Amino acid sequence: MSDSKCRNGAHGSTTTDAELFDRQFEELVSELTEQDLTDPVLADALGRLREVLRYNAPGGKRNRGLSVIGSLRELVTPSELSPDAVRRALVVGWCIELLQAFFLVADDIMDASVTRRGQPCWYKKEGIGLDAINDAFLLEGAIYRLLRRCCRNQPYYTNLLELFTETSFQTELGQALDLMTAPPNQIDLNRFTEERYKAIVKYKTAFYSFYLPVAAAMYMAGIDSEVEHNNAKIILLEMGEFFQIQDDYLDCYGDPAVTGKIGTDIQDNKCSWLVVTALGLMTSVQREELQSCYGRNDEDSVARVKALYNTLEMPSHYRQHEEESYQRLVQLIERHAQNLPHAVFLNFAKKIYKRNK
Amino acid sequence: MSDSKCRNGAHGSTTTDAELFDRQFEELVSELTEQDLTDPVLADALGRLREVLRYNAPGGKRNRGLSVIGSLRELVTPSELSPDAVRRALVVGWCIELLQAFFLVADDIMDASVTRRGQPCWYKKEGIGLDAINDAFLLEGAIYRLLRRCCRNQPYYTNLLELFTETSFQTELGQALDLMTAPPNQIDLNRFTEERYKAIVKYKTAFYSFYLPVAAAMYMAGIDSEVEHNNAKIILLEMGEFFQIQDDYLDCYGDPAVTGKIGTDIQDNKCSWLVVTALGLMTSVQREELQSCYGRNDEDSVARVKALYNTLEMPSHYRQHEEESYQRLVQLIERHAQNLPHAVFLNFAKKIYKRNK
Repeated sequence: MSDSKCRNGAHGSTTTDAELFDRQFEELVSELTEQDLTDPVLADALGRLREVLRYNAPGGKRNRGLSVIGSLRELVTPSELSPDAVRRALVVGWCIELLQAFFLVADDIMDASVTRRGQPCWYKKEGIGLDAINDAFLLEGAIYRLLRRCCRNQPYYTNLLELFTETSFQTELGQALDLMTAPPNQIDLNRFTEERYKAIVKYKTAFYSFYLPVAAAMYMAGIDSEVEHNNAKIILLEMGEFFQIQDDYLDCYGDPAVTGKIGTDIQDNKCSWLVVTALGLMTSVQREELQSCYGRNDEDSVARVKALYNTLEMPSHYRQHEEESYQRLVQLIERHAQNLPHAVFLNFAKKIYKRNK
Repeated sequence: MSDSKCRNGAHGSTTTDAELFDRQFEELVSELTEQDLTDPVLADALGRLREVLRYNAPGGKRNRGLSVIGSLRELVTPSELSPDAVRRALVVGWCIELLQAFFLVADDIMDASVTRRGQPCWYKKEGIGLDAINDAFLLEGAIYRLLRRCCRNQPYYTNLLELFTETSFQTELGQALDLMTAPPNQIDLNRFTEERYKAIVKYKTAFYSFYLPVAAAMYMAGIDSEVEHNNAKIILLEMGEFFQIQDDYLDCYGDPAVTGKIGTDIQDNKCSWLVVTALGLMTSVQREELQSCYGRNDEDSVARVKALYNTLEMPSHYRQHEEESYQRLVQLIERHAQNLPHAVFLNFAKKIYKRNK
């Protein structure tokens, strides 16, 4: 079976997993807002939930969500994968997209971001404001409603509950590290070390974006040994680190028309791969220049930081890093994938290397 | 065994559950921040978690937390209650206090509150601000870490995970209802109906404050039948409704030196029991007066609302309601407690009726 298609119906027409995934969204909205809780006094709150779900859950690249079913197809044979099992994997995929939506809605408030996925951030919408905090909680809450509805009778149900709560906590610790490393208006370039950078990335991004979807698929395939999960984690966290480095690069060098967001890492005093790497390359004069323009909100300062990055040839350093990282990853897969099909990891890697959005 | 004491050690010295509970807090802080996750790169994030836990989790009345062990002592015989089982019940009690802390930290931001438990709200502290959103998430995340550490091998572990996630979602739906019923700067007295009031109270407060601790104790005692849980729910949600009515009353008529908070329900345009009940008692002239001064932030308007409440003799209506509610509750206990010991509910009721803080 090809990596993203499944045979559907008697006429041999094929539907991609991405199509099935997108179609399932409105079903889940109606499950959550019409069939799950039916107390009539909740109607207005469920209406709000519907609006929050529709604005914030779709519209991303949905790589995380799709990799649950993608990984599961590599872990079990087609004959073991009933239509119900496919449906459950798609739902668990949406749970990951909901987790992401929960974090993004909240992070955008904390970072004072303006746009997300080519539209205003949810909290920036007329009449929303800080009520968006509770909306973020609702997105998170929806995860456990869906898991309960779709997986309650499955042997891996408790594993998934633990996986989602644990991954959420790791991500929140990562966000805490990120916030304390880059407080607005307190520029201290000494905080921007490679070690701190790697810690933020691992906890804030890599666990939920890379380990979570594959780990969920592994549990759904009946693979629950700690050894196998740890092996997968080593590979996936490395992949996650590269992904974030790329994200940092695109924040500055990406095309907003393609990425759907206007980068603000420089203004936000972020501990970005660019600034961490540039710090290791620059002269003390350049460091003074950076000190005077990083983390400031005016256009001129941002332009001076970008000029410095260009002088240091950051795009070329980035491309070199990309190449090395890919080679390292292939080696990790050779060494740690063991019983797990390499395609689980390689499919994932293919999607992220050389992306431009 | 008396309702809040347990024999401790060979010399027959008695320690109250409240003392055990308070002593356990620092143990749990150290479990969460020193023993649970030990990756050295997390040190700063765990330091933040420690600070967030210490500022926000203790300092309340801890009725919710204490009623887990209190209820469990009524549900099982002393000989069935090993020291480990007591310890677990105290931990689950702290999980409820953490859930409450999670909600309060976030609600205070959304309501623009100033003080909480006699100290500045967490987000109001120097250097915290909206980073408090992530701190709220950390408090929530700590719940699942503790449950995992203390109850993972217990037969009721999955029941507790579901109970906490489900109760959180109900509370968030209640908060959504509350926020949409009382948007700041949009005074519309027509929204303040008794039906809406009861819905907000049930979802926003009663589930987590009243049903959750008793339900947790029931699961820990091996009682997991839906019928018994539904019976307990009927009684406890009624109790929760009265508790919130009392809270609304104290927001206006309580002594800030005793309650530890300065009420802002009038300024915040809250759908409070006082305004809902007053609306049912007032003339159309009084309604016009209320329309012109409710939900406004100046002292004069607040004083005019309070004068109206006094004219309508709200304290006397409140005392009458308190009496009737207590009688109704006793009847519900007679009718629905069935196999459950009445003391589970009566002990709880004793703590809340006639409280002044």
